[in-house]
Amino acid sequence: MSDLSHLPPATEPPASLWDAADSGVLAPAWAGVGANDIVGDRAWVQAILDVEVALVEAQHELGMVPDGAQAVIAGAARVEDISRDAVIRGIYETSNPVIPIVAELTRLVADSDEAASEYVHRGSTSQDVMDTAMMLVAERALRHIQTDLDLAIDAAAALTAGHRATLAIARTLTQHAVPTTFGVKAANWLHLLLDTRERLAAIADSGLPVSLAGAGGTLAAYREYARIAGVPWTSGAQLAGLMAQRLGLAVRDYPWHTNRVPVAELASALSIHVGAMGKIAIDVHALSRPEIAEVSEASGVGHGVSSAMPQKHNPVHTTVLLAAARHAPAVSLILNQAMVAEDERPAGAWQGEWHALRDLLRTAIGSAHHGKLLLSGLHVVPERMAANLAMSGGAVVSEKVNAVLAPVIGKRRAKAVLTEALFNAGSGKGTGAAGLDLREVFAELLRREQVVLGDDELSALLDPANYLGDSDQIAQAALRRWAARTGKSHISPVGTQDKPNE
Amino acid sequence: MSDLSHLPPATEPPASLWDAADSGVLAPAWAGVGANDIVGDRAWVQAILDVEVALVEAQHELGMVPDGAQAVIAGAARVEDISRDAVIRGIYETSNPVIPIVAELTRLVADSDEAASEYVHRGSTSQDVMDTAMMLVAERALRHIQTDLDLAIDAAAALTAGHRATLAIARTLTQHAVPTTFGVKAANWLHLLLDTRERLAAIADSGLPVSLAGAGGTLAAYREYARIAGVPWTSGAQLAGLMAQRLGLAVRDYPWHTNRVPVAELASALSIHVGAMGKIAIDVHALSRPEIAEVSEASGVGHGVSSAMPQKHNPVHTTVLLAAARHAPAVSLILNQAMVAEDERPAGAWQGEWHALRDLLRTAIGSAHHGKLLLSGLHVVPERMAANLAMSGGAVVSEKVNAVLAPVIGKRRAKAVLTEALFNAGSGKGTGAAGLDLREVFAELLRREQVVLGDDELSALLDPANYLGDSDQIAQAALRRWAARTGKSHISPVGTQDKPNE
Amino acid sequence: MSDLSHLPPATEPPASLWDAADSGVLAPAWAGVGANDIVGDRAWVQAILDVEVALVEAQHELGMVPDGAQAVIAGAARVEDISRDAVIRGIYETSNPVIPIVAELTRLVADSDEAASEYVHRGSTSQDVMDTAMMLVAERALRHIQTDLDLAIDAAAALTAGHRATLAIARTLTQHAVPTTFGVKAANWLHLLLDTRERLAAIADSGLPVSLAGAGGTLAAYREYARIAGVPWTSGAQLAGLMAQRLGLAVRDYPWHTNRVPVAELASALSIHVGAMGKIAIDVHALSRPEIAEVSEASGVGHGVSSAMPQKHNPVHTTVLLAAARHAPAVSLILNQAMVAEDERPAGAWQGEWHALRDLLRTAIGSAHHGKLLLSGLHVVPERMAANLAMSGGAVVSEKVNAVLAPVIGKRRAKAVLTEALFNAGSGKGTGAAGLDLREVFAELLRREQVVLGDDELSALLDPANYLGDSDQIAQAALRRWAARTGKSHISPVGTQDKPNE
Amino acid sequence: MSDLSHLPPATEPPASLWDAADSGVLAPAWAGVGANDIVGDRAWVQAILDVEVALVEAQHELGMVPDGAQAVIAGAARVEDISRDAVIRGIYETSNPVIPIVAELTRLVADSDEAASEYVHRGSTSQDVMDTAMMLVAERALRHIQTDLDLAIDAAAALTAGHRATLAIARTLTQHAVPTTFGVKAANWLHLLLDTRERLAAIADSGLPVSLAGAGGTLAAYREYARIAGVPWTSGAQLAGLMAQRLGLAVRDYPWHTNRVPVAELASALSIHVGAMGKIAIDVHALSRPEIAEVSEASGVGHGVSSAMPQKHNPVHTTVLLAAARHAPAVSLILNQAMVAEDERPAGAWQGEWHALRDLLRTAIGSAHHGKLLLSGLHVVPERMAANLAMSGGAVVSEKVNAVLAPVIGKRRAKAVLTEALFNAGSGKGTGAAGLDLREVFAELLRREQVVLGDDELSALLDPANYLGDSDQIAQAALRRWAARTGKSHISPVGTQDKPNE
Repeated sequence: MSDLSHLPPATEPPASLWDAADSGVLAPAWAGVGANDIVGDRAWVQAILDVEVALVEAQHELGMVPDGAQAVIAGAARVEDISRDAVIRGIYETSNPVIPIVAELTRLVADSDEAASEYVHRGSTSQDVMDTAMMLVAERALRHIQTDLDLAIDAAAALTAGHRATLAIARTLTQHAVPTTFGVKAANWLHLLLDTRERLAAIADSGLPVSLAGAGGTLAAYREYARIAGVPWTSGAQLAGLMAQRLGLAVRDYPWHTNRVPVAELASALSIHVGAMGKIAIDVHALSRPEIAEVSEASGVGHGVSSAMPQKHNPVHTTVLLAAARHAPAVSLILNQAMVAEDERPAGAWQGEWHALRDLLRTAIGSAHHGKLLLSGLHVVPERMAANLAMSGGAVVSEKVNAVLAPVIGKRRAKAVLTEALFNAGSGKGTGAAGLDLREVFAELLRREQVVLGDDELSALLDPANYLGDSDQIAQAALRRWAARTGKSHISPVGTQDKPNE
Repeated sequence: MSDLSHLPPATEPPASLWDAADSGVLAPAWAGVGANDIVGDRAWVQAILDVEVALVEAQHELGMVPDGAQAVIAGAARVEDISRDAVIRGIYETSNPVIPIVAELTRLVADSDEAASEYVHRGSTSQDVMDTAMMLVAERALRHIQTDLDLAIDAAAALTAGHRATLAIARTLTQHAVPTTFGVKAANWLHLLLDTRERLAAIADSGLPVSLAGAGGTLAAYREYARIAGVPWTSGAQLAGLMAQRLGLAVRDYPWHTNRVPVAELASALSIHVGAMGKIAIDVHALSRPEIAEVSEASGVGHGVSSAMPQKHNPVHTTVLLAAARHAPAVSLILNQAMVAEDERPAGAWQGEWHALRDLLRTAIGSAHHGKLLLSGLHVVPERMAANLAMSGGAVVSEKVNAVLAPVIGKRRAKAVLTEALFNAGSGKGTGAAGLDLREVFAELLRREQVVLGDDELSALLDPANYLGDSDQIAQAALRRWAARTGKSHISPVGTQDKPNE
Repeated sequence: MSDLSHLPPATEPPASLWDAADSGVLAPAWAGVGANDIVGDRAWVQAILDVEVALVEAQHELGMVPDGAQAVIAGAARVEDISRDAVIRGIYETSNPVIPIVAELTRLVADSDEAASEYVHRGSTSQDVMDTAMMLVAERALRHIQTDLDLAIDAAAALTAGHRATLAIARTLTQHAVPTTFGVKAANWLHLLLDTRERLAAIADSGLPVSLAGAGGTLAAYREYARIAGVPWTSGAQLAGLMAQRLGLAVRDYPWHTNRVPVAELASALSIHVGAMGKIAIDVHALSRPEIAEVSEASGVGHGVSSAMPQKHNPVHTTVLLAAARHAPAVSLILNQAMVAEDERPAGAWQGEWHALRDLLRTAIGSAHHGKLLLSGLHVVPERMAANLAMSGGAVVSEKVNAVLAPVIGKRRAKAVLTEALFNAGSGKGTGAAGLDLREVFAELLRREQVVLGDDELSALLDPANYLGDSDQIAQAALRRWAARTGKSHISPVGTQDKPNE
Repeated sequence: MSDLSHLPPATEPPASLWDAADSGVLAPAWAGVGANDIVGDRAWVQAILDVEVALVEAQHELGMVPDGAQAVIAGAARVEDISRDAVIRGIYETSNPVIPIVAELTRLVADSDEAASEYVHRGSTSQDVMDTAMMLVAERALRHIQTDLDLAIDAAAALTAGHRATLAIARTLTQHAVPTTFGVKAANWLHLLLDTRERLAAIADSGLPVSLAGAGGTLAAYREYARIAGVPWTSGAQLAGLMAQRLGLAVRDYPWHTNRVPVAELASALSIHVGAMGKIAIDVHALSRPEIAEVSEASGVGHGVSSAMPQKHNPVHTTVLLAAARHAPAVSLILNQAMVAEDERPAGAWQGEWHALRDLLRTAIGSAHHGKLLLSGLHVVPERMAANLAMSGGAVVSEKVNAVLAPVIGKRRAKAVLTEALFNAGSGKGTGAAGLDLREVFAELLRREQVVLGDDELSALLDPANYLGDSDQIAQAALRRWAARTGKSHISPVGTQDKPNE
């Protein structure tokens, strides 16, 4: 028999709030963002109770439960009255929180109406309750995430609209590549967020399903209690449907107790959402380095202070988003692997989902929250973008010069002479030498290769603003998609009038 | 400068086929299943060449390439003529296989037509080519997987239809739970496969996209070459569209070079497919243990032999599927994390996708292949299912007895007296004692609790066949879904007439 | 500026204990095992405070802090007095819990001694404090884990000693292979636990290090304050050494703020420990299936009850250990990846360690706890082992018959004729047919191949007890290693006298 | 029975080398680095053959094999003569490459000496051979990695020695923190590499073990063949010892067929090694951005060219190392999870190790190779470090000014007035404004707070060179550790005389 002596007596209250196993004190990814209200212990245990209530109400509607019992149960199903210690003890003994929660609920109901307590959890099994509660919590979290994501999307659209003409440098493999605009960068973010938003919406819109399978996947006890109550029974879908109505969930007409696709797909979509925010964050991370300084997080009292250095203004949203983007895929992996669930209920795979899914949900909530704040408060510095674009002295249009030369002297010779000339001029050596001016280098090269250009033509050739490709089309397409998606016809551009620190 | 002296001279051929880094000799998950034809080196390099051809043909159609050049390039773009050593050397120097493949292609074209070689890879960048080639390979793999999956689905449907009435035991947490049918088990597999099939189809049907972004996401060089050729240009979507037609891919009207949602979602869907096969495999793994022996893999000459033990008939498909289900989520994680791709092309995240995606694709191909064989050849032994169902002597209907007792004596007392009686009778102690007969135990208990049942009533109460719940509805619903999905009106049930080893 | 309006006012207390983000209610892997006392919020925040105290005491000993200040600080450093809301708010604003905890501590000290508050966190940086606190918490967790592990090891030794002669079947790829003893199975577990124990001990014995690097890795502020105080300074190792003495930690003579090997190696050792317990659990998981029934978990009131089925005795320790073994490697991966920590302090990698490391520590604590209970209470049923060994009717010695035949008729013919004979007799077909008796099959085969054996010789050949190989040596070697490791000379064998359910 | 019709006829040769499943063409992490020679198919299959040879030679030495047979087998055990198609077909049928390789070897031996072929794989089992071959391959890979790692370590030491006095800025959370030296950065790398080197050496020095367990963990068949040969047998350790001598491996006196600690610990150490290289790479990744430009990879013909942009000099080693650092932990996870290996040989966990371990080994080989090249060719630009250090105009010594002010005006006031003054001066706003000069700001502030400093004192206070803390001690300690580790007394400092691109 298990030794429980190390457990505290069930009646002893914790000495303080710090006795919680986890308040978020180690989790910048979700501490303080309100995730707790949605997926914290209170919310989760209440969701389990809500499922029990929906079950008995549905059974009552079917005629399986006498009038009144369902109301008594509904009245008693309050998380505040459930003993946390009793629940922890129950999990310890059974590796399942539903069992002690049902015992607590039964106790509470019986205290006021012994007869009604007979109808608590009738015909049910812990997995039906837990899986449905998981979906209930997840559905609420999904709605919350989508709300924040919509604000992040609007902020990305505003940045796109506001910076369609803000020249910047595109960087590949850390090095300067070709001219672009900050509007294109923001448009990429916008598309990315719209993509992840669509996937989350597809999952939310098709509905997270009620789980109803019974003790071994046949719903036999539900059906048996219907039989005993003299209630006709076609299939479990009817009962599930009535529960789904109450809970705002969907119905699948098949048990999914060991078909964990709903969980794995949800996990994947959440993790991809977190990954998308990570992409935005890593861009800001790079662009806000002091030597680059093209963007920075919004500042404010208390935000991003250092414990040691008065001058520091630390990135906070970026930090959190990057931490989250390293975390979420690992947790999603656990949920992907949990699909390998033996028999009609596995020992290990299923039980491992709960903690992992919560961890993922709050990470996703935190990412949506910090992503929204990052984008809506992003400080953009066009002057620094211009300065960085200029620092290579024109090397960034060498691809264009190459395009002009190649038809004349052949592409291999064009690339070779350009590479050599640029190398000799000190470009691309990572020296970042300020003041490099390649105009003369290009002019000399073109002369040598018999490509005659006037001064203005040369200037036009070397002007980064003349080598933006589809930049404007890309930004506009993104805004059109945003408008179609949101139904909004107008976006207030931000950033065009931005001045540093004002 | 990098030291290349350890590299073999480019001209030295490998001593034998064994010089390949990997032929699958360590990878039961995909060795021998034909994955190599779809995603092996030959296929992948050819796909890269195919993309170069589609690009130049599309540019030709737009008027950017003189007549004939595109045909010369298409004629030269054969993987057989590309030097593998040159490619490996190029990757070593640039961490990018497209660069040396383009160099090889240019060389091959120039050998026959110097002028045409100018139009190889014109205006392009390695990422456009690689990403499009990835999608091309993935699209072929997806089609292959879906074909095998359809056969697996049909096999699951046949098992469902054939075993709607085959009694079996449902097991939860390794222990016997309640009666069910093998048809329900097969129906769960069928739903699972239909779920994953739908997700794969959704990805395939919406189309894997051509990638067209240019060196830094603005398509500037494509556009510049159009300008030089005097060809009007609206946006890159036109060029991408022409390529997509040729390649059987889709068009996105925005660059996705650093928006890796297409890759991450593909990875997720593949990994969930592999996970689904893992679920089926772990069920078979358990059910084919000699002490349980309810199913076994098809046997045949050479299949599943042991190097040491003449009597062994080892599971092969199950083994492979379980290995795959441990592998795929980890690789999918890499692709999820690759979303965090800084700037306009990351250093590390993108380059890490190629090897990982191939690994995942061939694992998914292997899983579909072995899953198909496992299901279509599965040997089912109804006699063993009946024997295992009977071994608890009736304990598996205790939930039903409880449902009968509870309305009479209250649910807590009912559960308590049943638990005590069953415990005293030796049930649930994991002894698996053959011959346990609980009829008298239940009869005595019911008498004591004043529940009067005749002999026939007692027999009916304790007959597992009377406690199947929605089993038949579940099997039928799965078959209806299968019929709706496949358009087939008839399935040949398998298994009902199965005899062991005949 | 960040919008904090969604945060509750700092003074509002939570409505109930359920307001904790996480009490373990979803985490069977560690709920109720006491992990909370070691790595919960209270313990972690107190560890942070303990580090601040050790720092100021060490600085006082060096002469950098006036007498008395360190005592005031030590007196104030109580987690109970720290406002949890203020800490959460601080993390939200700075992605760092140390900053608000230091602010709280400073406030508490200043309340009683304004001058002393000057010496809180002097010259320090949040990372030094957090990293040292992490090691402090980890060190306590490691000690706890090792204590439980030692008990698990003793239990495995007792099983080994008690079952050296308990015949059993070895299973490979789910199928029956050759005879063995349960003592060998237990010896494998014993070696496995000793292996992981040694690695954990190596980490604990070499000491988890104090972290002292200062704001940017040069310890400049610590040194500057020493200079101002007129205290000679050689290097930070002196200060770190004094802290280490107080905290029971070790000293590295180099900063490790971005050298995360200590964290990654700790994570790896913990995850391997959890994996080892997973191996034991999956063995028990299989062996406790009712059809096999060779072992089962200890039972007891409340342990392993089902919410639905009175007859169920669910595995709890096994379930928890398997859930943990799927979880820990994923969390360990996060900590492995956190090594990629840019600059002198990364944005994301470091902050993501805290939550992950706690999750891993409590999972490891839970695994040690449940592993100990699983092994020390394991119920072993030699009769079932004998029955399962016998069920193949002798096929399990076919490797031995092969060894006898091969020298006579050649190995290929021997394997072929044996395989054919066994196949014809119905062995290895997964039928699990009771009563299969291969004695006559083997006799006939030997006769046909001219191998003449008397009846007794044949009996001896086919007796599984005569084909145990090194079984006894393996068990004894494991016990010798155990004795050498523990210094114990005697183990009470368990299991030999075991009777089912007594 | 499995359908093999999709497999090519065994005799048909591949059309070209491109038919290999994988030549590294998608794997910059290891393509071209020579990993193939160590862990490619040829090497792996030969290792399997080598193990078979060592086994028969050891059995011969024990007297179990007649003179000559072992020599015939040794002579035939050449990978070149093994049919790759036969092996792939065998894996497909048995999920195990050893079975067909043994069949091939038996065929080859029998071709020249039928009698000798009896002694191939005698008493053995595929897992013994595969596990020992894995260790053999891993041992060779470990040696190779350590050689490269030693060169990387020497390069890090040279950088440390050469840049002890090279002033630089420490960055935390992307922002400028405090002054440091590049020598300290290199010293951190040096310590990191020495740490990982020690762990790899500990594994290599304690020896990777021969695996000898027999078909089910009892070594029964080995022992039976000894008995038949009339050879005395104490335990399998004697046979394993003779094999280990031949193979350069170690002996464990217990079977580890399902105790996967050796594999999991190896994986962890390799993955931590790759992670360490990732840390160095991400530092270089940041520092080589053109705007920062403090370091760059060695350049050379062909190295890092772009397919599109003539001016680009792309990082190659950095890219590869970062890709590897995202890959290795995921593969290591697979091997960690493979510990959960049921029974005496699992179906799935074990078979999944082979491909994963090879993937990890070659990733680790590639990381050591590219890490060596990165460090030994690293181009360091002290001028840019000085310029970046200066760009904040002195804000980076604000921590020091704070340390001077705090004892005078209290730490809270000191931090507050400094933060305000720096904020007003535009510091820390991410503007990176060139020319910011804070001398006057600090002077004014000190005056206002009554801290009287002369001009020289102020200059001294604000000179970053005066705020280096333990920088020099840290560099020297690292060099002392290096010297003690390598036994070298002298290091040629590099970098002090470096000129850009010469």
